[in-house]
Amino acid sequence: MDTQPDIIYLDNAATTRPLPEAVEAMRLACEACYGNPSSLHRLGLEAERLVSAARRTVADALGCSPAEIIFTSGATESDNTAILSAGRRGGIVTSMAEHPAVLEPVRLLEAAGTPVTWLRPRADGNLDPDEIVGAVTNDTRLLALTAVNNETGAVTPLEILPKLKRAYPQLHIHLDGVQGFLKLPMRVDTLAADTIALSGHKVHAPKGIGVLYRRKSCHLKPLLIGGGQEGNLRSGTEAVPLIAALGAAVRTLLPAVDAHTAHVRTLAGRLRSGCERLGLPVHSPADASPYIVGIAAPGIPSEVMLHFLEERGIYLSSGSACHRGSLSDALMAQRLPRDRITSALRVSFAHSNTMDEVDRLLEALDAGLHRIRRRR
Amino acid sequence: MDTQPDIIYLDNAATTRPLPEAVEAMRLACEACYGNPSSLHRLGLEAERLVSAARRTVADALGCSPAEIIFTSGATESDNTAILSAGRRGGIVTSMAEHPAVLEPVRLLEAAGTPVTWLRPRADGNLDPDEIVGAVTNDTRLLALTAVNNETGAVTPLEILPKLKRAYPQLHIHLDGVQGFLKLPMRVDTLAADTIALSGHKVHAPKGIGVLYRRKSCHLKPLLIGGGQEGNLRSGTEAVPLIAALGAAVRTLLPAVDAHTAHVRTLAGRLRSGCERLGLPVHSPADASPYIVGIAAPGIPSEVMLHFLEERGIYLSSGSACHRGSLSDALMAQRLPRDRITSALRVSFAHSNTMDEVDRLLEALDAGLHRIRRRR
Repeated sequence: MDTQPDIIYLDNAATTRPLPEAVEAMRLACEACYGNPSSLHRLGLEAERLVSAARRTVADALGCSPAEIIFTSGATESDNTAILSAGRRGGIVTSMAEHPAVLEPVRLLEAAGTPVTWLRPRADGNLDPDEIVGAVTNDTRLLALTAVNNETGAVTPLEILPKLKRAYPQLHIHLDGVQGFLKLPMRVDTLAADTIALSGHKVHAPKGIGVLYRRKSCHLKPLLIGGGQEGNLRSGTEAVPLIAALGAAVRTLLPAVDAHTAHVRTLAGRLRSGCERLGLPVHSPADASPYIVGIAAPGIPSEVMLHFLEERGIYLSSGSACHRGSLSDALMAQRLPRDRITSALRVSFAHSNTMDEVDRLLEALDAGLHRIRRRR
Repeated sequence: MDTQPDIIYLDNAATTRPLPEAVEAMRLACEACYGNPSSLHRLGLEAERLVSAARRTVADALGCSPAEIIFTSGATESDNTAILSAGRRGGIVTSMAEHPAVLEPVRLLEAAGTPVTWLRPRADGNLDPDEIVGAVTNDTRLLALTAVNNETGAVTPLEILPKLKRAYPQLHIHLDGVQGFLKLPMRVDTLAADTIALSGHKVHAPKGIGVLYRRKSCHLKPLLIGGGQEGNLRSGTEAVPLIAALGAAVRTLLPAVDAHTAHVRTLAGRLRSGCERLGLPVHSPADASPYIVGIAAPGIPSEVMLHFLEERGIYLSSGSACHRGSLSDALMAQRLPRDRITSALRVSFAHSNTMDEVDRLLEALDAGLHRIRRRR
């Protein structure tokens, strides 16, 4: 990827820069493969072949069958589809720290009368595995959890899922895997999930494409109905250029996942020890995904520090891009002191970030702490 | 657009080739404007600005306010959203010749108990304006119609809508405008529609982007919920590259709509008189949109003729790309003889098609008639 020397982009949990391979696949699909995959002529078949190839690539990455991959418009659609389908059957267990794409459909079902058990993360940001297990009963039909929290990087204890699934065969397990895909191991054979939502634009594909993994044996009621595309589970002409782009991004990244994660782990380590030196508390759990580090600069409102950093070409966020101004559900659920929520900063890495960028962020944070505190 | 000399593409109602301007806008958005529009930093604001510019362009094309434009993943999502929102309030009036993205949500509501009046097109393919008016009662809450039929080009008598709306202020009028947008006049001030569904890939933008126009005063229940994007009416990170591409396509095509339509009208005229000469019946109404001409070669199954034409580099379809094999709802509703349905061919034009291409299609049809009939 050609670098943009004046920009240090550390908001990769909000969205990532598409890989050149993805952009090129998208362009090619538009120019040379513009048929409708449902058309029975050659131009249609060529488009269908592009879609099938991408479907195989994503299936390989998850270790599932291509027939279990549904392409959607994004993770919101994937989360909504799975939750609104499975959540109508009985009780729901979820957490207070979920992404709005999970929270909102659960709230909708709760308002319509479905009983919901809301799990609260511990003070360290992690969900307690025993609490998850204890919350599921014979009446629970849906357990909806985010594999990696988008604000803290907290990793849900997924190792408890297979046992839960064996104990409650009626239970539908839905995972929002957006911040874990191509970062942490995410293979369906070890996960016991019935559905998994993924997003293209968080893995260096363009915005507008997502995936819903659906275990073959699991019944799913489609959210979008019409022409019957995607095995009648998601109607609408397939977004061929975006699907091809996602396939290209996954093909490019998959072989390097371990190396990328190891590299990002060193970046996160450097950032964490730098924060300790500067006296900035970190609210991401110690064993969180290294791709997301939530910190705070108590006494300095997030937007003031973000502005200071942006003037120095450093781009990050206060929390989820979906929150724009309101206080973070995830951090409030973690019962962080208000001062740490209002001064929260989320640093989120891509594999392309460098140690030098972390050092420049730390220098800028240090400068900001002195300058802004002096001004106030 | 660079031509592909060996291809005569006449399946533009299934999907169109993206304009170079659209592909370039998409590429630029990916490479230079990859922020999340919800992010509060400069990269986010730049992405938001791209989205706003495209929103203004689409609003200008429809003669509405930018706040009335909702970007979706495609016309299926737009149709579903409008119909599932407005159709829950009471009776529905629609036609049997609708696109599946309209038919399926209406069937879903009917199965759940909503009374539905199904209008049947006349033998000439047109809906009878008096029948539409007569079907709407005080109990009707939704009138859902396709402005231009995707298989026959039949134009719905939209001129009756303003009077209907005045007579029944509770009535929600939804139009599927997919095959009419940038082809026929479609301005919200003369249409009296509350919602209109549009598709990007039918107007030379890429697949995966659609529009839902929603009159400001009209209440709409969102289908996708979560982060609250698009004025809380369509959650999910905005598909910035696709939105920018749609904006570019509309900006390019809008000034030329009249010239394009006049040109396509001459193509359709040439095709119709050629079909008459060859003895091929045309089932599109005489006053249909010139962009779609439905014909038949009785005695020759559609797929046999399509194969013959494809071998000569001519690409068209038997009907809607969404039907793959099953008999067309629209043509059955029109009560065409079965032999004309099973031999139906849909020729659908883009502005870039030429008179020479029509002549080559007619020559190939002539050759096909002789060769295939002799073989049988």
